[in-house]
Amino acid sequence: MQNKITKLYNIKYPIIQGGMIWNSGWRLASAVSNAGGLGLLGAGSMYPDVLREHIKKCKKATQKPFGVNIPMLYPNVEEILQIIIEEGVKIVFTSAGNPKLHTSRLQSEGILVTHVVSSVKFALKAQEAGVDAIVAEGFEAGGHNGREETTTFTLLPMVAEKIQIPLLAAGGIATGKGMLAAMILGADGVQMGSRFVASEESSAHLAFKQKVVEAQEGDTQLTLKELAPVRLLKNKFYQDLQELYKTNPTKEELKELLGRARAKRGMFEGDLEEGELEIGQISGLLHDIKPVSEIIKEIVEEFNLAKKQIASLNCC
Amino acid sequence: MQNKITKLYNIKYPIIQGGMIWNSGWRLASAVSNAGGLGLLGAGSMYPDVLREHIKKCKKATQKPFGVNIPMLYPNVEEILQIIIEEGVKIVFTSAGNPKLHTSRLQSEGILVTHVVSSVKFALKAQEAGVDAIVAEGFEAGGHNGREETTTFTLLPMVAEKIQIPLLAAGGIATGKGMLAAMILGADGVQMGSRFVASEESSAHLAFKQKVVEAQEGDTQLTLKELAPVRLLKNKFYQDLQELYKTNPTKEELKELLGRARAKRGMFEGDLEEGELEIGQISGLLHDIKPVSEIIKEIVEEFNLAKKQIASLNCC
Repeated sequence: MQNKITKLYNIKYPIIQGGMIWNSGWRLASAVSNAGGLGLLGAGSMYPDVLREHIKKCKKATQKPFGVNIPMLYPNVEEILQIIIEEGVKIVFTSAGNPKLHTSRLQSEGILVTHVVSSVKFALKAQEAGVDAIVAEGFEAGGHNGREETTTFTLLPMVAEKIQIPLLAAGGIATGKGMLAAMILGADGVQMGSRFVASEESSAHLAFKQKVVEAQEGDTQLTLKELAPVRLLKNKFYQDLQELYKTNPTKEELKELLGRARAKRGMFEGDLEEGELEIGQISGLLHDIKPVSEIIKEIVEEFNLAKKQIASLNCC
Repeated sequence: MQNKITKLYNIKYPIIQGGMIWNSGWRLASAVSNAGGLGLLGAGSMYPDVLREHIKKCKKATQKPFGVNIPMLYPNVEEILQIIIEEGVKIVFTSAGNPKLHTSRLQSEGILVTHVVSSVKFALKAQEAGVDAIVAEGFEAGGHNGREETTTFTLLPMVAEKIQIPLLAAGGIATGKGMLAAMILGADGVQMGSRFVASEESSAHLAFKQKVVEAQEGDTQLTLKELAPVRLLKNKFYQDLQELYKTNPTKEELKELLGRARAKRGMFEGDLEEGELEIGQISGLLHDIKPVSEIIKEIVEEFNLAKKQIASLNCC
């Protein structure tokens, strides 16, 4: 039983684990791939030599396909691409940046390129650039996010209407029902981030994971739109930002408050007060930290159960 | 074949037409009710005597149930409630305001009360107040909107997890697939706004309807958050607002630019430059103005087709 996404990546389930900074090391990526999904290493928080080490460890930990997510506006992109080619990684997810720059070069090395977009316009550009698949990510997603603020529920059918290549949905999806709903709206598969943050194998600090599973609806907000929009838990750092906003700050003042390494401090070192805690709105639906194998099993079971239950929806 | 929503309102399909200001007069509401959905008059843009006239005309135009939407923070609420009771309207949708204030009084007159919310917290308050059903409306919805910015895809399962009474989904839904996805995420039915704006029977100006069906993904934005968050098409008025925002305006300066009757000017009188054009993100998926009977027929057909197609999703 295969669909466009499982065929493309040669995986069992069309479930991709987002390659998130400070969360997505070799333990998480290999666990997801071993459970039948597609694990991604998050290169955005790794120096090139750290990424190489994670790739090597991931290859030892799984015989299944895995990939690397690269935010194309980060420094060291050239070095990272070189390592990916040298290490024989065959799946790359790119986000931000122009997909025209590297897609054909990577593909000529036998690498599948999937690009993450937040709008119909960027989806069309990525398709023109020749990428193998697209991730359409809605406003509810954690971390960095689009300026159009288009939500998963509306972005999916609008992108699906315009593109022909395989389409993954991201933003707000953490369950089998969410996966099924996304597929009805036009997706061939899903990318989940927040759900895998709250896994045993995520490299995030335990204090951050616990904060994520305690989060309620309304506890995140998209902010720092003047720099690059990012969805965060509303902790002390977020409140400090809101105080600064009252003074009509310049971009430089915002950058100064943000400072350096806030995301590492929050998500990796567990400083819940001063750190930047990136997570999606769907964290309000997450109540427990679990092993990846259980997460995937539950998603697939719920997906199949929901599929059956739909047949008995008596309303039209 | 009935579900919680069709039973509650005694209608054929669990499709509610949002009671939108300047769009939802007796022609639209009666057309929706005659087509098997539930039509709502939008009291928010009607003086009490105008509402009474619309109710009388709606009663003549349909034998089916219809209702009235009342934004509870508008002036004349007491007079409007009196008219609804006098005219024997049996379905009321309330939005904004505290549902505790009027719910039991209306129910004692044999009126069903449904309250619109944008968060889990308000959903729980509405359930405690004893309302008969809840509309959970996501960030992508047009017009006035919640402060939490929670999207339909994430709000629905989080509300469904906490409440026991019938649940309608709103925000981003305009198709049969959207309806099916919403029901998978926990809704018992849907409320659609934008789709019915672009109907022949909506009382909006034709120029506004045409603007709506020309809208693309990314053409709306939530703004005026300091007063009451509202989602608008990004026209000249919206751009003027953004210029004002650069000056760090006070609430009073924002109110002054907004002025009076902008929504009427835009949506009812068709001033696409200076008017306030309230519409949802899903407008990017709407491509034609159609009669209500066709809209409902297409939604139901697409819903049933999608239901069948799910059975053949081969991926898990």
